[in-house]
Amino acid sequence: MTDRFSFRLLETDAGARFGEIGTPRGIVRTPAFMPVGTAATVKAIYPDQLKAAGADIVLANTYHLMLRPGPERVARLGGLHAFMRWDKPILTDSGGFQVMSLAKLRRITDEGVTFQSHIDGATHVLTPERAVEIQCLLGADIQMQLDECIELPAGHDDVERAVERSLAWGMRSRRAFERLMEVGTAKPGQALFGIVQGGTDADLRRRSTDAVVAMDFAGNAIGGLAVGETQSAMLATLELTAERLPAEKPRYLMGVGTPVDLIESVARGSDMFDCVLPTRSGRHGQAFTWAGKVNLRNARYADDPGPLDPESSCPAARDYSRAYLHHLVKAEEYLGAMLLSWANVAFYQQLMAAMRGAIAEGRFARWAEEAKRRLA
Amino acid sequence: MTDRFSFRLLETDAGARFGEIGTPRGIVRTPAFMPVGTAATVKAIYPDQLKAAGADIVLANTYHLMLRPGPERVARLGGLHAFMRWDKPILTDSGGFQVMSLAKLRRITDEGVTFQSHIDGATHVLTPERAVEIQCLLGADIQMQLDECIELPAGHDDVERAVERSLAWGMRSRRAFERLMEVGTAKPGQALFGIVQGGTDADLRRRSTDAVVAMDFAGNAIGGLAVGETQSAMLATLELTAERLPAEKPRYLMGVGTPVDLIESVARGSDMFDCVLPTRSGRHGQAFTWAGKVNLRNARYADDPGPLDPESSCPAARDYSRAYLHHLVKAEEYLGAMLLSWANVAFYQQLMAAMRGAIAEGRFARWAEEAKRRLA
Repeated sequence: MTDRFSFRLLETDAGARFGEIGTPRGIVRTPAFMPVGTAATVKAIYPDQLKAAGADIVLANTYHLMLRPGPERVARLGGLHAFMRWDKPILTDSGGFQVMSLAKLRRITDEGVTFQSHIDGATHVLTPERAVEIQCLLGADIQMQLDECIELPAGHDDVERAVERSLAWGMRSRRAFERLMEVGTAKPGQALFGIVQGGTDADLRRRSTDAVVAMDFAGNAIGGLAVGETQSAMLATLELTAERLPAEKPRYLMGVGTPVDLIESVARGSDMFDCVLPTRSGRHGQAFTWAGKVNLRNARYADDPGPLDPESSCPAARDYSRAYLHHLVKAEEYLGAMLLSWANVAFYQQLMAAMRGAIAEGRFARWAEEAKRRLA
Repeated sequence: MTDRFSFRLLETDAGARFGEIGTPRGIVRTPAFMPVGTAATVKAIYPDQLKAAGADIVLANTYHLMLRPGPERVARLGGLHAFMRWDKPILTDSGGFQVMSLAKLRRITDEGVTFQSHIDGATHVLTPERAVEIQCLLGADIQMQLDECIELPAGHDDVERAVERSLAWGMRSRRAFERLMEVGTAKPGQALFGIVQGGTDADLRRRSTDAVVAMDFAGNAIGGLAVGETQSAMLATLELTAERLPAEKPRYLMGVGTPVDLIESVARGSDMFDCVLPTRSGRHGQAFTWAGKVNLRNARYADDPGPLDPESSCPAARDYSRAYLHHLVKAEEYLGAMLLSWANVAFYQQLMAAMRGAIAEGRFARWAEEAKRRLA
């Protein structure tokens, strides 16, 4: 434990990186997958199960928490860690992405975003300064600058405008974070990450990357991907971005992805990931296993006495029959969503652990080929 | 452990009974509350949590399981215990009650009930013989005769007809169970209970009770209560029924009830109970505590840092703040239903344990007065 934020790069192998982020709340082993705890809970999973599954860090959504229960209330109640009973690191996003995708009647200016809550229609304003303040009130260990993330495909001018605005917001987020650190609202060891934007336009990505790097954040995120582009466009953009990012800081690829996306992105130097896929799929009867995706709604599992994934160490994947899981999914029972969400989050953690092991032992390229074949 | 079904009455105090049901799957301490696992899962709760909460037995619904996944399938998969990963005793109802309340286009004759599934409209037939066969296929440790349960208020003739039919079905259920025991479909130590009907009509109740007792079931259930009558009518009927039931066999009051109902019914000699109230309430933001009912939707809990019930040993009631539970309920998060269902099932078990302790120590009447005051 330390009261400083740190990153140690322990091994690099075939482009993939094995490392450790240090925070006052504990170590995050990288490459790391962060389960998404949108509204201060990773849906249908107990905190203890997350920990036992190997999660070092979870992500929470600033947009949802600013609307309900409200950051000032969370602060009064002792912060997000105490509120949701998760004592390990938490990363919060800035709220920008969800304002764009969920809020009604949003109006974006250089100052910030004005929008209506999707819950009760109330009007809210999110500026770079407020986004950082909210994340400090929540007590997030890793905080994100406010950025403008636009859907792809988009025209060059729209992407460029979003890049310039995100850079300006990045600088304002950085200054706001420093001020909050001076007055003690931000706590020692908490860190702010910058976000690279630029769609799939190589020139804009390079410009954005270089400007974000110059701002010297504690870590760098790659945003604006996994929003509608092809996997090859995503990976090409990731490659040209990653090669311009400093090796000594963590790289967070936002919103990615499928198991194969994760392997491909780790191979291109990404260290951190988040995605709703394991939990959302779990709630819809889909499981991720070492033998690929399993749709438990399928009638073929109605009489299958075998476990979901004999290679998994997760009780949900190991101890219950596929026939029972099929029944629970068909009957729309809570326990179906609970077991499959748990199994999926555990699978993602096992996948990351396998990658870390392969990188540490210098066999990542071979491991990745074999894993992609099995998961396909 | 034993391969016989047994009941030992250990103490009687102020009308309340403390005892032990012995089955090959383990002991059931009485008075016992059986959490309801309708479709082979107690909604939103893991089997391990039920066990840790102190549940010795769960109830599963024949009606739901005969429709989905089907008793023959459950038998092929090793029986209900293996299917739902619950190795302690299971009691199944006969399906009759739910056919009356859930099925469409039901037609009742002396032979049995023909009805359409509420899931897919398929036609099914439930006879006394089939109801017992289904329960044997499921592998239930305690099985119930098929009965006709009618809604109250009802006319005298309707109640009388239901009583007579239930008695005839009781005799057929008993014979069917004996035949299945001879051929090995029913297993040693499994038991069949009879059911007293008769609405709130004292004469019909007495007639039904005496006839059921004469059939010499392993245990006797009191059905047809908690279906719309007042609490005082229910308790009066319970009293006149219980005094005619043999002391040396367990008495199961079906479908009851609230915490105060349970105390009043234990005071009148009941040994076993089941009710969806703790789990259904939990899914709707209602919690049972030693200080009474708590509606977590209420805005007054939004800033309450205290636990749900400081007297509970259940982690759900002890470790999370009311503010967090309020938030989860408002946000309609799975974890809200999970934690409150868990807390409620644990509270019901703690209530039964407190009653057993009070009876064993000869202080039940005093304990009951104090508990009713606190819970009101």
